[in-house]
Amino acid sequence: MTTNDSILVVGAGFVGLATAAFLATKGLTVTVAERNQFIVDSLRKGKLHFREPELAKRLKVVVGTGRLRVVLPSRDIYQKASIIIVAIDSADQQTWKMKLAAFERMAAWIGGVKRKQPAVVLLKSTNILGFAGLFRQLLDQAAFGHEVQLVVNPEFLREGCAYEDTVRPWRVVVGADDLKARRRVVRFYKKLLSASVPIIETDCASAELIKLGANLYLSHRLAFIHEIAEYAHLQSLDITAVKQAIGLDPRIGSDYFEPGLGFGGSCLPKDCYLINSRESETGFTFHTAETALKINERVLDTIVASLQIRLGRFKGKNVAILGAAFKPETDDTRGSQAVKLALKLRRRGAKVAVYEPFLTGADHIVDGNLPLAHGLNEALTSAHVIVVGTAHRRLRNLRPKTVAALVKNKLVCDRFGLLNRTTWKKHGFEFV
Amino acid sequence: MTTNDSILVVGAGFVGLATAAFLATKGLTVTVAERNQFIVDSLRKGKLHFREPELAKRLKVVVGTGRLRVVLPSRDIYQKASIIIVAIDSADQQTWKMKLAAFERMAAWIGGVKRKQPAVVLLKSTNILGFAGLFRQLLDQAAFGHEVQLVVNPEFLREGCAYEDTVRPWRVVVGADDLKARRRVVRFYKKLLSASVPIIETDCASAELIKLGANLYLSHRLAFIHEIAEYAHLQSLDITAVKQAIGLDPRIGSDYFEPGLGFGGSCLPKDCYLINSRESETGFTFHTAETALKINERVLDTIVASLQIRLGRFKGKNVAILGAAFKPETDDTRGSQAVKLALKLRRRGAKVAVYEPFLTGADHIVDGNLPLAHGLNEALTSAHVIVVGTAHRRLRNLRPKTVAALVKNKLVCDRFGLLNRTTWKKHGFEFV
Repeated sequence: MTTNDSILVVGAGFVGLATAAFLATKGLTVTVAERNQFIVDSLRKGKLHFREPELAKRLKVVVGTGRLRVVLPSRDIYQKASIIIVAIDSADQQTWKMKLAAFERMAAWIGGVKRKQPAVVLLKSTNILGFAGLFRQLLDQAAFGHEVQLVVNPEFLREGCAYEDTVRPWRVVVGADDLKARRRVVRFYKKLLSASVPIIETDCASAELIKLGANLYLSHRLAFIHEIAEYAHLQSLDITAVKQAIGLDPRIGSDYFEPGLGFGGSCLPKDCYLINSRESETGFTFHTAETALKINERVLDTIVASLQIRLGRFKGKNVAILGAAFKPETDDTRGSQAVKLALKLRRRGAKVAVYEPFLTGADHIVDGNLPLAHGLNEALTSAHVIVVGTAHRRLRNLRPKTVAALVKNKLVCDRFGLLNRTTWKKHGFEFV
Repeated sequence: MTTNDSILVVGAGFVGLATAAFLATKGLTVTVAERNQFIVDSLRKGKLHFREPELAKRLKVVVGTGRLRVVLPSRDIYQKASIIIVAIDSADQQTWKMKLAAFERMAAWIGGVKRKQPAVVLLKSTNILGFAGLFRQLLDQAAFGHEVQLVVNPEFLREGCAYEDTVRPWRVVVGADDLKARRRVVRFYKKLLSASVPIIETDCASAELIKLGANLYLSHRLAFIHEIAEYAHLQSLDITAVKQAIGLDPRIGSDYFEPGLGFGGSCLPKDCYLINSRESETGFTFHTAETALKINERVLDTIVASLQIRLGRFKGKNVAILGAAFKPETDDTRGSQAVKLALKLRRRGAKVAVYEPFLTGADHIVDGNLPLAHGLNEALTSAHVIVVGTAHRRLRNLRPKTVAALVKNKLVCDRFGLLNRTTWKKHGFEFV
């Protein structure tokens, strides 16, 4: 790949934009295709449509210099590009089913034209095991599709530092069955990245397993600490000591080891599902994935059960959920356990008021069409119970005295250990 | 605790002897109670009855200086001791059921006498959740048992470096419901250990959860990599790249992440069982523990199935299993998956020859009364398939040419990736 390559990034989400902004910062000219007109307009003004501080800064610069331009998808754009980086949601965020239609069109467009040099498609989107094989078949159905090189190049970005993780990744995985394609993409990354970044070269299917496997491990780790915390909670044990002592084994570690409402987000639960998807036709069951999802569900069911014991019927009861994002200090509610809990409680008749400090402008959360309280006080007023939904730092500053004056019951459910129990108990609050 | 304290260590296994040798090296006088006369005699000569190089060296010194003496258990010994460190197998190694009888006698002896200062019992033995509560009840039934201080002080030794891990542990957990007892034991450890060793102070039940939880995490981690490796094997993927790339996430790490025949040993499988033991009466199910055991079983069942496909009936077929220890470079076959596999194959009619390079003196393995081959050649001669049982380094040096001359079929099952496939394939071997 050379600087003459025409680079197309498909999808203007975390992954697509972080990649595009990085390449543009490195001096390449990048086109981003995005089908949402609102997002296209916003990006053209250099404005990012989600919370990602470093990326927002970089984006503004590269849009300003013209190195990064944003367009609506078209056959023409695909056929001009020689490097196509696919970073769209390839599974539906609600049903977690494969979204094949977008790939069918993409394959027809990319493979529909004869090129001097073969186009290379870098699949960053995560999907079922064997998805690259399916996409290869789609490409091969197009007139010149067999000339297109397909590389599975999974992303491992953490939300909140998507740009930083693109510049300094823990590893880059280049999965291609065609050795020429593999080498081409390895050269591309070697030019862009520090020599200390490990590049793993492998085949397509192994690269797919690496991506889903890594997310399965992380889910598995979070499920583990939630299971331990749940037992500790039920038996009134010292969860802080338990968590700390277990994590002091360096083979275990203490990072990414916080209990709460379970694990959420747009990746981990989805990937636990995808790895066992019947669509993949491998017939193999990853027991660890089933278990992680099962534990995640139990966390919420246990809370519902213990609230029911305390509140009696849910009908007519007000539940204040503080925090709806799946991750602290973000506004991202995709796959949020707090949202799932709110919906579970609402289905049982409770009146649920959700307050999300990073979403004060919005009226509701798209998932489940859940209305948002317009402020903290609105959520707390007349609450029969307060549930911490996200471990946002600012929620630590809640004053029990102020809260006590608003609520109906001094009852709190805080599985994160965010609030200082001693202080809150002094003000008459009880923890459930 | 002072140097005038009379210290009794109960049990001359890895944990008891590593602790006793450490205390004696630090200048304390220690008595070790062991009911096996053969072991007592051997230790009195300064000879260790299992493979643990550093411990063997230290033991010889402290037995020589008289700082460490070994006796058969007696009421008298228990009643004279003011610090009693319990390090016996508290669950049966075959059935994993609680061994309460030994603790009943121990409690009666310890609590049967009035003392100037209360005796403190440090429970290092691992058992079901709530075991300390049961032991407390046993103590309270004795005349002066309520004066005895009970501390859950789990061990976290790794086999092969039991002494090193005692001197420089990753953490010390002091679990006691009685604050005085807790402080007494913390002072004791602070005098003995470097100030950099974290000491976690908590209650008895939390300390029990820390111990079982840590082993559950490690089992869980090993089960994960085995599940990934099993899928990779079935789909002919690049397991080396997969393992490496997943482990490059520092939240995951690459230590303790080797596939093989599953996880074994005297601790991990037992503790996965104990944490869900019905005897604990908590009614809580750790799904992660069930899953880890399920995956461990599936590893062997998949091998049996794939061997059956290749060999047809097992009756009349010779299987050579190379390595029977659960861990490389040790002679410890407790809870070994290689032994479990050998027994599974034998039950199906195969003639199994097990060769364990670190057990050349023994005739058979106690678990399942499995005979041992007297040498590598005996095991390999006329084998229809060779199975790597343990990733002992020395097995890497096997020469395919020499092996080919002995076996009946050039068929190998090596889930560890120990042998160089390219070289072996050149000599006509096939991997199953």
